Amino acid sequence: MEVTIIVRRKRVFVQQPVAILDSGVGGLTVAKEVMRQLPLEKIVYFGDSLRAPYGPRPAEEVRKFTLQIVDYLLQFQPKMIVIACNTATAVALEEIRQLVDIPVVGVIHPGARAAITTTRNGQVGVIGTEGTILSGAYEKALKSISPSLEIIGLACPQFVPLVEQGLSGQEDTYRIVSECLQQLTESSIDCLILGCTHYPFLSSLISEVMGPNVALISSADETAREVSTILYHKGLLAKRIQKPVHQFLCSGDPELFRRIAEQWLNEEIKVNSVVWQVTRIG
Amino acid sequence: MEVTIIVRRKRVFVQQPVAILDSGVGGLTVAKEVMRQLPLEKIVYFGDSLRAPYGPRPAEEVRKFTLQIVDYLLQFQPKMIVIACNTATAVALEEIRQLVDIPVVGVIHPGARAAITTTRNGQVGVIGTEGTILSGAYEKALKSISPSLEIIGLACPQFVPLVEQGLSGQEDTYRIVSECLQQLTESSIDCLILGCTHYPFLSSLISEVMGPNVALISSADETAREVSTILYHKGLLAKRIQKPVHQFLCSGDPELFRRIAEQWLNEEIKVNSVVWQVTRIG
Repeated sequence: MEVTIIVRRKRVFVQQPVAILDSGVGGLTVAKEVMRQLPLEKIVYFGDSLRAPYGPRPAEEVRKFTLQIVDYLLQFQPKMIVIACNTATAVALEEIRQLVDIPVVGVIHPGARAAITTTRNGQVGVIGTEGTILSGAYEKALKSISPSLEIIGLACPQFVPLVEQGLSGQEDTYRIVSECLQQLTESSIDCLILGCTHYPFLSSLISEVMGPNVALISSADETAREVSTILYHKGLLAKRIQKPVHQFLCSGDPELFRRIAEQWLNEEIKVNSVVWQVTRIG
Repeated sequence: MEVTIIVRRKRVFVQQPVAILDSGVGGLTVAKEVMRQLPLEKIVYFGDSLRAPYGPRPAEEVRKFTLQIVDYLLQFQPKMIVIACNTATAVALEEIRQLVDIPVVGVIHPGARAAITTTRNGQVGVIGTEGTILSGAYEKALKSISPSLEIIGLACPQFVPLVEQGLSGQEDTYRIVSECLQQLTESSIDCLILGCTHYPFLSSLISEVMGPNVALISSADETAREVSTILYHKGLLAKRIQKPVHQFLCSGDPELFRRIAEQWLNEEIKVNSVVWQVTRIG
């Protein structure tokens, strides 16, 4: 079935939450940066861990899942939606922008912008899921702003499962990362876009493999900065006296999600499982 | 007299220029970053070098000058206005936002946002002109986003004249910079906002004085990134095959302006003097 979404409210209030969605725990890298850069903003986070990874799925399926989650999250009356998943951004960002009347931020343009700011030799690497790399979304975003850039894209399908299973600290992980990135270590790129929000979990390994002359660009930092810019320009920055209480929702095992999330965010959280509410639509 | 401004055009086209204004050559630090980050964007730059520096002037006077320049620049049908002067941003940004129906970007919020992203210990220094520091605009911008920050503001009225006279490379300059910043070198700030677009001309000296543990935040980089973000979100990024030809205008001595500008931008430019057109209004 087709999903149609409309935000019916006429006014958006500054105290409403920022909704962040991802295929699983990867978007927590964005959520953590939003918490740090915008400590007064309340977050409602949704991780579709039951159906992660999105990377190998057909674009049409990812599109439908993303629309379902946006539809679900609208019940929280967010003032902004952040699609903190590169695969979902590549296939659904523009459509969602048309469907809702609140700002929608993806993770691809912020990463592209940061790479343009960072590169000195104009040679930029991008790693992501198959879905993201195949879509050519980074290449398009980069070239639309700065046509003379040279871009090398590389799909790393092994990375997301490592993170979703909570294995990013294991010994084998270095070997897998190093083998995947071999082609890039032999290139002359001077910056590498981590084109998947799961990858910052592996950033110290990736940095070790790529060496000190390649700057890593995390979509997370940059997306949080874009969230801040847009909220400011729309007059939507929250005003609060107390630290807000965030909400975490996932479609998969809430215990596994909580364990990974608490380790990454460095604070205790409560996770609600919401399998039924989301999958009823599909 | 009061200045009233209205943009009458109904449609904004992507090929229209980005207008950048400053009290003099300081905004060239922003222009240079816009050229680097957005090589397809055409720039119309106005430096009010006849009346620089703005820092020691009464707020009402700076406000009037800024409105005059915006009114003048509207003849170029810009798709965006960048107030690349902290003093002018502090007193006139909100008013200009009300008066025109194109996006208006200032330099204070981008700098504040970058400092929030950069600081680890929450202690942030701000240097600027008397006008900027007295206005408390940075403190307000920083605290509105992250209330727990500790901020030390310091006016450095000596810096702008050094830059406008093209003396930033001279021997005496180190002594002046070092004396001005003494109070900050004795503090525990871990990042310092260069809260005046002239200061990047002095950044290697400032960095030497402050030492390696204090990150310098240039409004220029951050403002260019904000320009990029807003143009993207408004669907206003330029589409061009050739490098655009920029326009430079100043109210003071065009030769002095050209000399400083060419050194900073590292390319040849043509500068038009436009004293009469601007000052006729005041």
